Amino acid sequence: MRELLKKCLVEFIGTFFLVLTIGCSVFSNGSGVVPPVAIGFMLMVMVYAGGHISGGHYNPAVSLAASIRGALPPKHIIPYWIAHIIGGAVAAVTVSYLVAVNPAEAQPKFNTPALILCEFLFTFALCYVVLHTATSKDTEGNSYYGLAIGGTVLAGAFATAGTCLGAFNPAVALGLGVMGNATWAVIGITALTNLAGGAVAGLVYKLTCND
Amino acid sequence: MRELLKKCLVEFIGTFFLVLTIGCSVFSNGSGVVPPVAIGFMLMVMVYAGGHISGGHYNPAVSLAASIRGALPPKHIIPYWIAHIIGGAVAAVTVSYLVAVNPAEAQPKFNTPALILCEFLFTFALCYVVLHTATSKDTEGNSYYGLAIGGTVLAGAFATAGTCLGAFNPAVALGLGVMGNATWAVIGITALTNLAGGAVAGLVYKLTCND
Amino acid sequence: MRELLKKCLVEFIGTFFLVLTIGCSVFSNGSGVVPPVAIGFMLMVMVYAGGHISGGHYNPAVSLAASIRGALPPKHIIPYWIAHIIGGAVAAVTVSYLVAVNPAEAQPKFNTPALILCEFLFTFALCYVVLHTATSKDTEGNSYYGLAIGGTVLAGAFATAGTCLGAFNPAVALGLGVMGNATWAVIGITALTNLAGGAVAGLVYKLTCND
Amino acid sequence: MRELLKKCLVEFIGTFFLVLTIGCSVFSNGSGVVPPVAIGFMLMVMVYAGGHISGGHYNPAVSLAASIRGALPPKHIIPYWIAHIIGGAVAAVTVSYLVAVNPAEAQPKFNTPALILCEFLFTFALCYVVLHTATSKDTEGNSYYGLAIGGTVLAGAFATAGTCLGAFNPAVALGLGVMGNATWAVIGITALTNLAGGAVAGLVYKLTCND
Repeated sequence: MRELLKKCLVEFIGTFFLVLTIGCSVFSNGSGVVPPVAIGFMLMVMVYAGGHISGGHYNPAVSLAASIRGALPPKHIIPYWIAHIIGGAVAAVTVSYLVAVNPAEAQPKFNTPALILCEFLFTFALCYVVLHTATSKDTEGNSYYGLAIGGTVLAGAFATAGTCLGAFNPAVALGLGVMGNATWAVIGITALTNLAGGAVAGLVYKLTCND
Repeated sequence: MRELLKKCLVEFIGTFFLVLTIGCSVFSNGSGVVPPVAIGFMLMVMVYAGGHISGGHYNPAVSLAASIRGALPPKHIIPYWIAHIIGGAVAAVTVSYLVAVNPAEAQPKFNTPALILCEFLFTFALCYVVLHTATSKDTEGNSYYGLAIGGTVLAGAFATAGTCLGAFNPAVALGLGVMGNATWAVIGITALTNLAGGAVAGLVYKLTCND
Repeated sequence: MRELLKKCLVEFIGTFFLVLTIGCSVFSNGSGVVPPVAIGFMLMVMVYAGGHISGGHYNPAVSLAASIRGALPPKHIIPYWIAHIIGGAVAAVTVSYLVAVNPAEAQPKFNTPALILCEFLFTFALCYVVLHTATSKDTEGNSYYGLAIGGTVLAGAFATAGTCLGAFNPAVALGLGVMGNATWAVIGITALTNLAGGAVAGLVYKLTCND
Repeated sequence: MRELLKKCLVEFIGTFFLVLTIGCSVFSNGSGVVPPVAIGFMLMVMVYAGGHISGGHYNPAVSLAASIRGALPPKHIIPYWIAHIIGGAVAAVTVSYLVAVNPAEAQPKFNTPALILCEFLFTFALCYVVLHTATSKDTEGNSYYGLAIGGTVLAGAFATAGTCLGAFNPAVALGLGVMGNATWAVIGITALTNLAGGAVAGLVYKLTCND
């Protein structure tokens, strides 16, 4: 129980800084180059810092994928998800205090099928990379897992600009909703699509790797 | 057979996400800074994710170089190439659905001898880096091979902007053709030049390293 | 004594190049993309170069956090702080010689509570990452600690642009003061907040990790 | 002899691609963000590719520093320097063919004492980082040496834009001269300053590290 609380504290801290960095960099930088780099690097550093304690998920879709692959006990999914949700929500409130957010201007319009395809594909890629670099026996002890995981979000955020939210993470989607950055319909569709991407990544991992 | 299918699935996934990221970032970002960074990072993460299964080539020129150097059985070249071609083509179709592509505006003009020299030199560099960092006994177990391989494409794409397609990879060239980003004559010259760069890298590797 | 002098020389060199890079990149680049990348990478390389000698702190808040966590003998805190202060001040004088600094234009205005919250949160993140990646037994011998530490400053500088100085380091705050980049009131508040962030990170590390 | 020829071939290839990337990215990109990133990454990948054969210097100042520190036999300095000079010159001729260079516009003006101070400091930093991350017994077997070395040039190029050539390397200075990017007086001062920076780094390494 004490160990689970430690893991959840680490998951809360990582999710908090991920969503804080997303909100602060999106709302205070005009340039489209800054947010993906800032977000990818913050995820990377939190994965490196917390990976040895909790696995460094910071993302309900990753926890789902890890559980399907057998790297997270099923009974830990709900506590992890609660830590992610609280971390994302507290960060969103903090962003709203720190940075001027103008919801009316901030809400982009998306084509729904393209949004679903994009969020699905890149959440799949993210969870596929997490499972292969951070949970596989073949790659145990490597020093690149954080770079690979953060780098997937960096590349994915650049690739999907204008097509979807680029959340790849239900806790991030929730945070963007609290900040007023998207309608709750878009948030809900995004979060469910992210979970589907994680689940498929868990299954594909089992197809490609035996351990 | 089952193991070869797994390897080909991993090669398909990696090539798909590489070409998907190329198409999405090239067609939706005005800034010249974004695509090389997005592309280099996506290649890096897919190399780290799939390297332990298939070697993480995602590129027919790399498979040719690996075969000449003795790191891929010759009978696996064709199955790998088929996985690369299907991955590149499916990604190109996906890009055409996700992002508005305007072929007439998208096709740059190149000086042919300069295009050939550029594609040759940087494909050589890419395959030389792959062979030394991902197949050499001296560097076995390192954690930098994905960063080095993705980093070569990132630097090469910046260096060759305006001079050639910056494909360094026949599957990428094919994908750019399907997206209407270049004439089929340019695609064909690029793909053959990429294979020549890979072959020379395989020979130079043998000159510089004994293992 | 001789060993402590070596450590202090390494801490001086690293802090000098960190503050030199901050000053030169902030005052000679109009673009907001350059300084965070330059600063994060310079911190990274100095951490990798000096980590095996002195721990590679280059930051009084990090030395305080390391001491609370038990990774720096308390009697070394003051010598380290002196090395940081001299390194930051000498770099600031060097910057003033190399680059034209216009204090009147250079001093941004901040909302004080937001400045304190921002500097606190990201200095906490920086020290939390340092303790987990560079002092924990679980992660001993890893090759990513410099990337994680430099990456935190890179991401934090992007996230906090416009809200605070983005120092996360009392020696950097001092350097910015010497260069005329902020009022001494802002410098003082920033430096004290940075130390508070380091202290809290030391305590949270103990909550999340037993070694 | 055969082994020395292999090392020199690897040094030639790395220096060629470093100077090729410098020329192509400087002359074909208006944006100041691209060249430092492209150059730093190309140096990184060539260090990772060739480090296990030749040490991956690609820079006469680094070879001098390595020799002073005892990591390169003195009789290898001249062969290495010849490989660097040929690599830099051949790359410069290649750049002049590939990219339109306008010497009259390309030659920036510098303040000579500031140029000397800048080139000295950052070449010192580069060689200090090389010696600590790639030749020290403490850090043997690490996976970050290429990232640290390439990252130093990336950060240094950003920090010194407008103040000096940002060569940190006599072979790069020579290449810039062949491309017509600076007067031969500036090239000569830069190359000598780079060697001085390397020599001082060799001496400071011995002060801070016993192995």
